Formats: sequence, C-alpha cells, structure tokens
Amino acid sequence: MTAAADLYPDELRLLVDRELAELRFGEERSTDGIREAMRYSVLAGGKRVRPVLALATARAIGIDPARILPVALAVELIHTYSLIHDDLPAMDDDDLRRGRPTCHKAFGEDVAILAGDALYAEAFALLLGHQTGEPADVLAASARLATATGVDGMVGGQYLDVKDAMPNGVEGLRLLHALKTGRLIGASVECVLLATGAPAEQLVAYQAFAAELGVLFQVVDDILDVTQTAEELGKPQGSDERHGKRTYVSEFGLDGARDLARDAHAHARELLAAAAPAGDELARITDYIATRSS
Amino acid sequence: MTAAADLYPDELRLLVDRELAELRFGEERSTDGIREAMRYSVLAGGKRVRPVLALATARAIGIDPARILPVALAVELIHTYSLIHDDLPAMDDDDLRRGRPTCHKAFGEDVAILAGDALYAEAFALLLGHQTGEPADVLAASARLATATGVDGMVGGQYLDVKDAMPNGVEGLRLLHALKTGRLIGASVECVLLATGAPAEQLVAYQAFAAELGVLFQVVDDILDVTQTAEELGKPQGSDERHGKRTYVSEFGLDGARDLARDAHAHARELLAAAAPAGDELARITDYIATRSS
Repeated sequence: MTAAADLYPDELRLLVDRELAELRFGEERSTDGIREAMRYSVLAGGKRVRPVLALATARAIGIDPARILPVALAVELIHTYSLIHDDLPAMDDDDLRRGRPTCHKAFGEDVAILAGDALYAEAFALLLGHQTGEPADVLAASARLATATGVDGMVGGQYLDVKDAMPNGVEGLRLLHALKTGRLIGASVECVLLATGAPAEQLVAYQAFAAELGVLFQVVDDILDVTQTAEELGKPQGSDERHGKRTYVSEFGLDGARDLARDAHAHARELLAAAAPAGDELARITDYIATRSS
Repeated sequence: MTAAADLYPDELRLLVDRELAELRFGEERSTDGIREAMRYSVLAGGKRVRPVLALATARAIGIDPARILPVALAVELIHTYSLIHDDLPAMDDDDLRRGRPTCHKAFGEDVAILAGDALYAEAFALLLGHQTGEPADVLAASARLATATGVDGMVGGQYLDVKDAMPNGVEGLRLLHALKTGRLIGASVECVLLATGAPAEQLVAYQAFAAELGVLFQVVDDILDVTQTAEELGKPQGSDERHGKRTYVSEFGLDGARDLARDAHAHARELLAAAAPAGDELARITDYIATRSS
C-alpha cells in the first residue's frame, strides 16, 4: 500500500496554509495581543483535514476551490477554536498541542478563552463577508455551520466528553463522536455543496460519505492514541486512557478497533464512489485518514 | 422628570422574554445539561436593552417588530454568552449576576465555558436560519454581527478590559467601551437596518445615534457601580474599583461622570431626532438608559 503521506493532496494543504497565514483578524492595534494568540494556534500546522476536505469537495463537483476558500478557512478557524477551548484547565487541561505549549500555557487562560471566542466570530465574519455563491445558498451553508458547531453539534459533543454524559455502550460512543468531531467534518463537505447550490440528492449522497469518514477519522484517532509515541502525536501518548475516556479501543480492544477502522474505510470508499465519480482527491484523503500515523 | 421605569417599552421587553423562554436550543437529550445552563443564564431576567433596541428600531422604520425577532434574540443570546465568559474565574471571577450565582458557580466552569460557546452558535443558527429579509440583506446583517462581536468588537474589548491593554487616558477608556459594549449595542440597531435593506444614509444616521447611546450606557453603568447598593445592582457594589478598572468615574470623578452622562444623553437625543422622526420608543429607551437606577 502507498505510504499515507504520499496520498495526501498537499497542494490543497499548501493553499490552505498560505491563506491562513494571510488572515489579519481585524486591525485595531490595542488588541494585537489576542490576535497573536489566535495566529499562534491557527498557524501551529497540522494536516488541515477539514479545509482540504472542503477544497477537494469543490473539485469533485467541478467547482474552482478558490471560490469556496472562505468556507474552508472558516471550518479550520472553528476547529482551532475548539482545540483551544478543549485544552483549557477546566476541560481536558492539556499542556501540549502539536508539540508546542497549548494556547493557555503560552498566553494565559483568559487570553486563550477569548482567542477561541474570537476565532469563532472571525470564522463567521469570513464566511458571511465573502460572496462564495448566491446569497440564499451562502445563508444555508452558514446556518448549517452554526448548527453543526452548537448544542447538537461540536460544543454538545465536547459537553458529552467532559461530563461523560452520553448513553452507555457503543451507541453513546457513536453519539459522542458524531457530535464532537463528526458534525464539523460533515459540515466541511456539506457547506461546500450548500454554498454552491448543489441539488438535494447530491447533498444527501455526500453527507453519507462524510458521516462515515467522520467515524473512520475517530476510530483511527483512538487507535493512534495508544500505538504512537508522544513525539509522533505532538502530545502525550495514552492521554485518552489517562483521562478515563471511553474510546473505540477501550470498548473493542485494539484488534477490534482495527477491524472497525477497516470496515469504515471500505464503507466510506463505497459511499464516495456513489456520491462522487470524480472524487479522486476525496478518495486519497479517505485513504490517508485510514492509514495515517499521526 | 418621569421615573425611569415608566419610560421603558415593557411591551417589547415582554415579547422578548416570551420568545426567549420558547427557545429550545436543539433536541438531543444527552446534551440537556448544557441546555439547562444556557437557559439558566438566558432567562435570568434583565431589561433586555439590546433586543428591545432592535425591536424599537424596527418600529421606528415602519417594520413589524415580529419580522426581526431573530435579530433581537440573537443579540441577546450573544450578550448572555459574553456575560457568562466575562464572569469566569480566569476573567472577572464574579460569583453573582442579577442576584443569582453566575453560570460557572451554578454549573461548573467547564459547562459555563461551553454554554457560552453554544449560545454564540445558537445566535447565528437563529439569525441565519430564519428569513428576516432578502438573503443578501440577512447576510450583510449577520456579517455585521460577527465583526461586531470579534477581535475588533466585543471580544477584543473584553481582552482590553482583562489585560488593561488599552491606551492611557480617556481615549483608551473610550476605545475599551466602544469595543466591549458599544459594538454590540450598535449592532442591535444596525443589524435591523441591514437585514431590512434600509438605505445607506439612514444606516449612517442610526449608527451615529447608536454609538452615542453606547457611550451613554457605559457612563451611566460606571456611575451606578459606585452609587447603587449591591441589592439594586444584583451584584457586589464597587466591583469596578475592586478589580482596579479604569472607569468614567475613576477618570473624571463622580460629578464629572454625571456631566458626561448629561451631555451624552442630550447628544443621543439630538442624533435620534435627526435619524428617526418616528422614533418615540427609541427616545424612551434613551431616556431610560440615562435615568435608570440599576
């Protein structure tokens, strides 16, 4: 099998990195300190899976990725905000993220909370302030992004995680991840289709693919947390277990989780083939997510 | 002079309270705990100045207030989110708000951070998910709300406040309040005009009024912090001084601040008269803000 790193569409990632580096987040000099914290976290690197997914989705439906850059950047800003808040002392209390001190370690807890808040605002300012399609379509995409990141989405998922408030068993685990990571991964695909006015049946087919991709992403994440070194992960190894978190590994064992990952990978590829005959880059991202090592 | 309480358009406030009480914030049962914290803070009462301003602005330009309810509710949800985050231990560390334990005291710091995050998301979900005008106009209004609450708006203002990062002197104080409270008060008026496609010159005239109203609001707030009892305020008296905060009272003395309030009141009424010949309710809100006792 091709090494995971060779699969990833790095051209799209470089485009995302370049555009993120150019974001200025307003201009008032006195608030430079919060802007510095925002840029510190946004420019910490990473694979940019969500925005790259958005750009690859645009390609798959025959749309110039440059046109939906605001969607792509918005989902990455929101992902960054969620990491900053998840790392806070009152939440997961993590000191390292991508091999560097977490935002609150570098800038203090107050600034980290505000940097997260501000990134969410700037994500919407970016998405709403740029014409990526017909106004009614952009509205629909933005509304989807808001609900995907609210109580019945990303923030609700983080609530389930910190309070261990989901139902017992694997159904609870699925709900947790569907909300905490699945909804934003799904939105990274859905918002492109919504913003460009794609037909409803195409949206449904892509949604099915994105949902399975979200499952695959999380199962692999849980496996990597126990199999990779801290250096490879950029954060302490085994942190799920130390936090007493239920994961696909704790529920099914490592072999069981690997079986689940294999099934989710195959299923995601099937759903993708049905949704996107021209989805070559989406296929490569799917394979990368299944075989990545960090 | 008429007592402040008699001036306030309570009919509009009751409409806001009724609508806020009906908000469900999604439906996933497992996340009920975060929803409870959101409702606890949203339904804590208060004068609902921002949404009432929005509804009164609609009346002043001849539009049925019911049509712009999503705008009004969104600004109140965002205001509530900002109070929850401002009260956090890492920020102002306040235990009481409107005579009750603050959100983090009642539900824990983790849930309070997430309840604030979720309210911000739900505000956009509400505004973007309801057709209050032409899509292009709703987009413009939503974009304004996002920038008004980001780095160069509300969140940036809170940053200046907690880090005391604004320039010295009265200019710094004005900047602090223009960002921290002024931008959202302004957005409560501006977003109604934007969402309903009002002409640019009308928008500019209302903006001038709203900016002065924001100044008036803050000067009076600073005065009340030293002149009212804790019971009247619903929070400890003199908290600005205890937090070492620069205020209009610390900069100008109590008499100086009262002079400023009088000037801002007169100026706001002049600007209102120029912007809104039919702005009777806006005039009453302005007079209420100038003469209120809590």
